[in-house]
Amino acid sequence: MTAILSKNSYGKSAIRVLKVNKSSPIHKIKEFTVNICLEGDFETVHTKGDNRKCLPTDTMKNTVYAIAKDHSINSIEEFGIDLAKYFLTSNEQISKVKIEIEEKLWNRIMINDESGETSEHDHSFVSGGNEKKTAEIIITRNEVFINSGIKDLLILKSTGSGFENYFKDKYTSLKETNDRVFSTSVKAVWSFASRDVDYISVHKNVRKSILEIFARQHSLSVQQTLYDIGKNILEICEEVSEISLTMPNKHYLPFNLEQFGMENNNEIFIPTDEPFGLIEA
Amino acid sequence: MTAILSKNSYGKSAIRVLKVNKSSPIHKIKEFTVNICLEGDFETVHTKGDNRKCLPTDTMKNTVYAIAKDHSINSIEEFGIDLAKYFLTSNEQISKVKIEIEEKLWNRIMINDESGETSEHDHSFVSGGNEKKTAEIIITRNEVFINSGIKDLLILKSTGSGFENYFKDKYTSLKETNDRVFSTSVKAVWSFASRDVDYISVHKNVRKSILEIFARQHSLSVQQTLYDIGKNILEICEEVSEISLTMPNKHYLPFNLEQFGMENNNEIFIPTDEPFGLIEA
Amino acid sequence: MTAILSKNSYGKSAIRVLKVNKSSPIHKIKEFTVNICLEGDFETVHTKGDNRKCLPTDTMKNTVYAIAKDHSINSIEEFGIDLAKYFLTSNEQISKVKIEIEEKLWNRIMINDESGETSEHDHSFVSGGNEKKTAEIIITRNEVFINSGIKDLLILKSTGSGFENYFKDKYTSLKETNDRVFSTSVKAVWSFASRDVDYISVHKNVRKSILEIFARQHSLSVQQTLYDIGKNILEICEEVSEISLTMPNKHYLPFNLEQFGMENNNEIFIPTDEPFGLIEA
Amino acid sequence: MTAILSKNSYGKSAIRVLKVNKSSPIHKIKEFTVNICLEGDFETVHTKGDNRKCLPTDTMKNTVYAIAKDHSINSIEEFGIDLAKYFLTSNEQISKVKIEIEEKLWNRIMINDESGETSEHDHSFVSGGNEKKTAEIIITRNEVFINSGIKDLLILKSTGSGFENYFKDKYTSLKETNDRVFSTSVKAVWSFASRDVDYISVHKNVRKSILEIFARQHSLSVQQTLYDIGKNILEICEEVSEISLTMPNKHYLPFNLEQFGMENNNEIFIPTDEPFGLIEA
Repeated sequence: MTAILSKNSYGKSAIRVLKVNKSSPIHKIKEFTVNICLEGDFETVHTKGDNRKCLPTDTMKNTVYAIAKDHSINSIEEFGIDLAKYFLTSNEQISKVKIEIEEKLWNRIMINDESGETSEHDHSFVSGGNEKKTAEIIITRNEVFINSGIKDLLILKSTGSGFENYFKDKYTSLKETNDRVFSTSVKAVWSFASRDVDYISVHKNVRKSILEIFARQHSLSVQQTLYDIGKNILEICEEVSEISLTMPNKHYLPFNLEQFGMENNNEIFIPTDEPFGLIEA
Repeated sequence: MTAILSKNSYGKSAIRVLKVNKSSPIHKIKEFTVNICLEGDFETVHTKGDNRKCLPTDTMKNTVYAIAKDHSINSIEEFGIDLAKYFLTSNEQISKVKIEIEEKLWNRIMINDESGETSEHDHSFVSGGNEKKTAEIIITRNEVFINSGIKDLLILKSTGSGFENYFKDKYTSLKETNDRVFSTSVKAVWSFASRDVDYISVHKNVRKSILEIFARQHSLSVQQTLYDIGKNILEICEEVSEISLTMPNKHYLPFNLEQFGMENNNEIFIPTDEPFGLIEA
Repeated sequence: MTAILSKNSYGKSAIRVLKVNKSSPIHKIKEFTVNICLEGDFETVHTKGDNRKCLPTDTMKNTVYAIAKDHSINSIEEFGIDLAKYFLTSNEQISKVKIEIEEKLWNRIMINDESGETSEHDHSFVSGGNEKKTAEIIITRNEVFINSGIKDLLILKSTGSGFENYFKDKYTSLKETNDRVFSTSVKAVWSFASRDVDYISVHKNVRKSILEIFARQHSLSVQQTLYDIGKNILEICEEVSEISLTMPNKHYLPFNLEQFGMENNNEIFIPTDEPFGLIEA
Repeated sequence: MTAILSKNSYGKSAIRVLKVNKSSPIHKIKEFTVNICLEGDFETVHTKGDNRKCLPTDTMKNTVYAIAKDHSINSIEEFGIDLAKYFLTSNEQISKVKIEIEEKLWNRIMINDESGETSEHDHSFVSGGNEKKTAEIIITRNEVFINSGIKDLLILKSTGSGFENYFKDKYTSLKETNDRVFSTSVKAVWSFASRDVDYISVHKNVRKSILEIFARQHSLSVQQTLYDIGKNILEICEEVSEISLTMPNKHYLPFNLEQFGMENNNEIFIPTDEPFGLIEA
């Protein structure tokens, strides 16, 4: 039996960058993490230990910082596209570049001036929490694919959600309810109908749509809410051609107060991390 | 040699609770985690396997949910005090109760109504991020100690911070700078000069003071900023008698662009998690 | 524009199970985590909020425990296959079942008996660390796919590894070396040439091969070592038809002692988590 | 009100080191993480922004690597003592040094030679899992305190453990049992009756004692097991003067199979992380 090297790839992950744009006294900051993954003519690196076509992952890391220096980084999508193109252009042995970028969010600190007015500080920031912006860019010699996304957008509604009339079998123990807590950590990834998109503004509209549908809809199932969110985004954001949503159901279980002769009118819940329902479309 | 049982304690940790207050259609939610630790006459539990004085940790957990049901939980401090008192009153073998509570923050989702006005939704929430409120209550038969706190308040300033003129020895390699990125995840714990405090309002003032001093001050060292924050809080919040601050220095290292013939005017940094400086007072 | 529901799936993740096999006084234990993901005729669940074809994720969870009760669980692969078949057989609306299982490893505690002989204890265990066994089973109405795997197998060699003669460009700063620390957390996933395989014994042979090649080979690159490991497994384990290996390069950077007039003969390293090289084939 | 600076300290945390001892072809490796915390005359650093007495945390980090270079690091205790003494001796403004060290464990990879004999490889290692050795050294101008420890030693017994006859009240719902799964992640910290101790050998004996008592004893409560372990260590290891043990009760809850007409003879359990009982003495 002869071993055949099929698909292979390599790259550098978790390259962390902070770029401070000081072109005005009102600093802009972008903090993000880059993963790079290359495919190409790397067969002899594997089979012969011949590294002559191997771009070291350390050089990939250096390149990220060097490109970041002169790039405006208006959006992580635009930065990722230019970074991917750089690798393809300057390395003829590479056939495909995948760049993933995840942006941490920072908000300006609000301060009171002497007159009591509140304003945003020029160069001081407070964390925007766990929620992240994501971008994935895949470039080959012929094609460019761009996905934008939101990750770890954690939301909860304390009523306006039920789950009833589902399929039952001998292992069913779940009780039907028309009033439960519904909490999920939304992950959304979308692609675009055209080029030259304003990535920042599309992101803002997608996020707004997720929050509004989640808040307003009386949910009959996670699936239904997920579908309605997706439908609404495709209606409202004409730049978006496709969207995939992942909404793990983070269970809040009603605590059994009845065993102590007390009533629990959907007021006291046990938050749980495991197991969780995972709904995707 | 005879083994002597010195200090011992036991309890339940990581009891997670969501309380939904439905007294009005505008729901209020509190999500928090409780740790309970008891000391008392538990010698024979250890030395003889005699469990008659042992309140099971499972019962402690149940008690948290049962007490939460009828408690307004205006603040985690008030809830913790009442919970601690319950254990002390109903278990004569207990001499000391320590309750730690950590509250996750949720903000109301903002939605547009038909007229385009923005308003807070009644029962839908988005995560307030990693930052948490904390409370520690220690009660004995004679005394009550209450600490409030903030945890994981992550902040960053992109200028207005330096570190110069420090002690140098043969292992010094750090370069002096009057312009660096300063980022820290603040932990603050304070105690009170009096009883009957408005815990919510003190928390708000402490948080505001931290952000304002951090933003406005030109920092000569983490220590100086930490001290000035503490001093300002003691001046502004008269309810606070003592405050301890922990500010790990989360390093953002300038990337060496000079090796590629480029300049780095404090624009391109490598965020790092390890190692970090830890400053406390 | 009409929204079209394309691929959708749902399931339960992170279902944790401990099975104690008490058929002899020498207990056997298996601790594992199950993820279940279903595809099928769920369109109206999404588009109409009609749950009649929706098997609740809570029922999936119950089913895992119920099936585990009477199953020998000799291997996680055999358990996963039977679990997947159960879902397909008892739910005609389901077209595809994916089961992922991850097993934590426990070793027997060794104790000395009175005569000083060391032996394995009947029912007491110590954790086998982070390393895990994995299995992935995908079943449709026509086909069965089975993958076995190893995850988080963390290894390190303190010499016998170099990286030289690689591609250089204007952003190269890495120094060539014929002696470096090589550490990686191996992930391996393999599929089978035939049915009725002894999964436990194949796993043992694959693991042995990874460790031996890693230890013996003088590595010219991570890619070369990865390839040689894969090649060796395909030669030695005839049951394995295909194997994919992921070996993130966990960097140990030589500390610059030269700046203090000292020599570092590859003795003092800084372990780092970020960034890391990721090599796959 | 005048702000008074009370206790303050600062230092560097999470300094990661790998030392490869190459004094023979059979390499020895030590991987560990160091936290350093200093107290002393740092008032003006805080109150005046005067850094002249401030030893930068970056220099502390450099010092760890420099001292590690020429130190045999036979044990982390010996290394920590010498490191602490260095800081005290070379910085007169320092009054107290606290060093915490945590060692990751690596085992040699076993390989077969041509004759089929199994032997330990010279320079290749596999992770020893999550368990860690710990050391804490506190040195002032007059005194030296040394603690050794074990952390994250995860153990489980599938029978031989019960919990009965405990205190009951109106919130009791736990069922008495004479057969349950008992799992805990042991943390042990001990101090010494004398100087010039063989730290490695004491660690080995403490670990052995924990495992043996845990395995052999029929446990009536976590407290009883913890006490008997502590008692046994004080009897067997005469170098140990005091030991504190922390044993969080990692609950494995019997799954309710009875609801489906099946029996659960302590065979099927749900492992849970939260909440957990925490027992200390």
